[in-house]
Amino acid sequence: MLKRCLLVEVLLTGSLFLMAPELMFSQPQEQWRVNGSRLNDHLQTLHRLVSKASGKASRVAFSDADRTGRSYVINLMRAASLETKIDHAGNIMGRREGRASGSAPLMLGSHLDSVPDGGLYDGPLGVMAAIEVAQTLNEHNYVTSHPLEIVVFQNEEGGKTGSRLLSGEVMDKEFDLITSSGKTIRDGIRSIGGDPDRLEQIRRRPGEIAAYLELHIEQGAVLDSKDISIGVVEGIVGIKRWNVSIEGFANHAGTTPMNKRQDALLAAARFIEAVNKIVTETPGRQVGTVGQIQALPGAPNVIPGKVNLSLELRDLDMGKIDDLYQHIASAGQNIAQGTGTSINFEHFYTSRAALTHTRIRQLISEAAVGLGLSAMQMPSGAGHDAQSIARLAPIGMIFIPSVDGISHSPKEFSRPQDIADGANVLLQTTLTVDAALEHLSSRK
Amino acid sequence: MLKRCLLVEVLLTGSLFLMAPELMFSQPQEQWRVNGSRLNDHLQTLHRLVSKASGKASRVAFSDADRTGRSYVINLMRAASLETKIDHAGNIMGRREGRASGSAPLMLGSHLDSVPDGGLYDGPLGVMAAIEVAQTLNEHNYVTSHPLEIVVFQNEEGGKTGSRLLSGEVMDKEFDLITSSGKTIRDGIRSIGGDPDRLEQIRRRPGEIAAYLELHIEQGAVLDSKDISIGVVEGIVGIKRWNVSIEGFANHAGTTPMNKRQDALLAAARFIEAVNKIVTETPGRQVGTVGQIQALPGAPNVIPGKVNLSLELRDLDMGKIDDLYQHIASAGQNIAQGTGTSINFEHFYTSRAALTHTRIRQLISEAAVGLGLSAMQMPSGAGHDAQSIARLAPIGMIFIPSVDGISHSPKEFSRPQDIADGANVLLQTTLTVDAALEHLSSRK
Repeated sequence: MLKRCLLVEVLLTGSLFLMAPELMFSQPQEQWRVNGSRLNDHLQTLHRLVSKASGKASRVAFSDADRTGRSYVINLMRAASLETKIDHAGNIMGRREGRASGSAPLMLGSHLDSVPDGGLYDGPLGVMAAIEVAQTLNEHNYVTSHPLEIVVFQNEEGGKTGSRLLSGEVMDKEFDLITSSGKTIRDGIRSIGGDPDRLEQIRRRPGEIAAYLELHIEQGAVLDSKDISIGVVEGIVGIKRWNVSIEGFANHAGTTPMNKRQDALLAAARFIEAVNKIVTETPGRQVGTVGQIQALPGAPNVIPGKVNLSLELRDLDMGKIDDLYQHIASAGQNIAQGTGTSINFEHFYTSRAALTHTRIRQLISEAAVGLGLSAMQMPSGAGHDAQSIARLAPIGMIFIPSVDGISHSPKEFSRPQDIADGANVLLQTTLTVDAALEHLSSRK
Repeated sequence: MLKRCLLVEVLLTGSLFLMAPELMFSQPQEQWRVNGSRLNDHLQTLHRLVSKASGKASRVAFSDADRTGRSYVINLMRAASLETKIDHAGNIMGRREGRASGSAPLMLGSHLDSVPDGGLYDGPLGVMAAIEVAQTLNEHNYVTSHPLEIVVFQNEEGGKTGSRLLSGEVMDKEFDLITSSGKTIRDGIRSIGGDPDRLEQIRRRPGEIAAYLELHIEQGAVLDSKDISIGVVEGIVGIKRWNVSIEGFANHAGTTPMNKRQDALLAAARFIEAVNKIVTETPGRQVGTVGQIQALPGAPNVIPGKVNLSLELRDLDMGKIDDLYQHIASAGQNIAQGTGTSINFEHFYTSRAALTHTRIRQLISEAAVGLGLSAMQMPSGAGHDAQSIARLAPIGMIFIPSVDGISHSPKEFSRPQDIADGANVLLQTTLTVDAALEHLSSRK
């Protein structure tokens, strides 16, 4: 209940503002509030427009639904007086000039695209809230010190393509990948107004973005189950993935006595249990997952001779991921020895952890406190566009609860009040980060 | 080395016989021996003929390779003076009349077909040895009391179709199943000279077969690893199979803390370990296998929400299979409770155990002892045509070692001496069973 203590005030100031904006001029910045009902309306209108054709909230990148959503957002940006364009990557950029001309922009953004059969809030929340921040500043006739750049990054769910093109991380071969829309990334970029042959021109260098802020739903159930309004993201966890293969000996399930088996699936079962035990019993918030498994030849009457499975470890600390892996690999070798099998690990994917900037974290926490909202620090277990921009600039991320932690699902839902609260934290943090930017160290 | 003690004698009598068969007339029956080198030659010729086209030993039922093998065997049967025909099921039947006309036949047989990419010995051994028995009796001018029927059952590997048509167990819908040859069973039967519309005519009733004997390779490594020549089969194990499904909750592998997961694959891992533990720790020779597994949705970054797996239990005692299942099902419920998942068992297949006849087992053991061969009683973990005929008549089965227990593989290999030894046990058992048949109780 505590976290809702300012509800009445927010609603009052909101309606006061709607009635007579000029009355607000003398109001101190820390009392400025976004228009929560307008913001929620924008999200619901997006949902209505997108689902008109398909009946779904999904907007896989480069699909008709994605383009429908993008058109709507471009209109909203223009209505918020943003100077709007599509860059060569197909990202939508809405610029609002600052007082200090020529200084690097403070960037706010997120994405509009979703996973197949995804929900409404993962992505659009951050975009709509950023536009709402700009609109609110307009209504206070306030010009920030730095220019604001409000960005819709393309294809976040299919590999953070839009944000990674800014940081120059996209490999040539990625352009030929087929996305969920059926288009390659190259053709997808063309289909939303980008130009895949001129991508070098949009690449940013470190220092060319002053800072980046992103509001997003928390995709776990931590905030929701603890009834906390705001997650102050400590960083986006690093990820390492391995293909694990276990070789035993395929044999007749009727004629091979139990003590003569080299059962690769029995070894895999013990390995999966060991991964869970090691990851769970080590202090900390790391996670470890076996999500894929294949047993060969795969018949009820044949002892599996080979098993392929995936191993994924995530933590904010890459060194800890490596330590966990050493424990797991050594447990795997013991299991192999005990089952007459052999085990092999092939490392195939790394996503480096991206820490948020300490000072920006403080400013987010202070904004939440100033708004009377409960807040906690937490890692982000999921990847976000902020992770790409962390290579170029200090970043900050704000989470709000997603009910029951559900995401990547049509059942994804965030309460209107949490959405308004999150946008107000984004507004206040934008103001304080803009003011503090000259004092931010370039390194955390 | 003990098991080879009669080797010299066998070779001597073999070559003596080749030189002057008429010298053998006064030799006591228990000293009669098959011609081991001729038998091995027949197997190797089959291999040569079959692999001429494809380069493989495989003979999937109804394929060109299968038909090539069948033609060769028909020629061998005719050369052994068997009255040879193809019945409406496509089984090859070679008859040798007995002294007591009109009495039920003593049947010897096995199959010629193999699994895809299978080996030479699984099946053809029993067929070639039965023909060799007939040929040996010819050479001794000996007529058994009962007619002998030497049978090549079609499509053993694809469901024991040929033998199950004799016992009337084949269901109508099976005729439409596509076999490894690409043909349906119905078309396959036609392609080898059978008539799927007249199958009722070939069905046998209990009592219409006096007894059935089958020589086969042991498809485990028990005989080979213990260096024992002859397996006296106690029975063919019963089989029950279940589809097991475990429901958890699919969730984001990055954002869902370890203690908030309902990981269906972790539950499956514990279940696989429990199956192994229960089956291994219960006294006896039962086996239990999880051979198939599928985790959904099956991505490295998603906690599996559902797992489907197979459970198979085999034992000579169907009651024991049911007891083991009760233990396993109850362990599964405990695992589900501990992992926040639910588990469901769907029983979908039963093959009832078929015990061999006690007296025939004794006669096989005596034959082995008489030949100076080591022998042991053992269950057959694999299914065989004998299992179908057990519904109609007393059965006996003789196993010889397969090196390293390998079968259903091109690496399948049985030593020429073991083959000759096995055929001699079949010969001697044919003689003693023929003599004892009047005294066999119809029930074991």
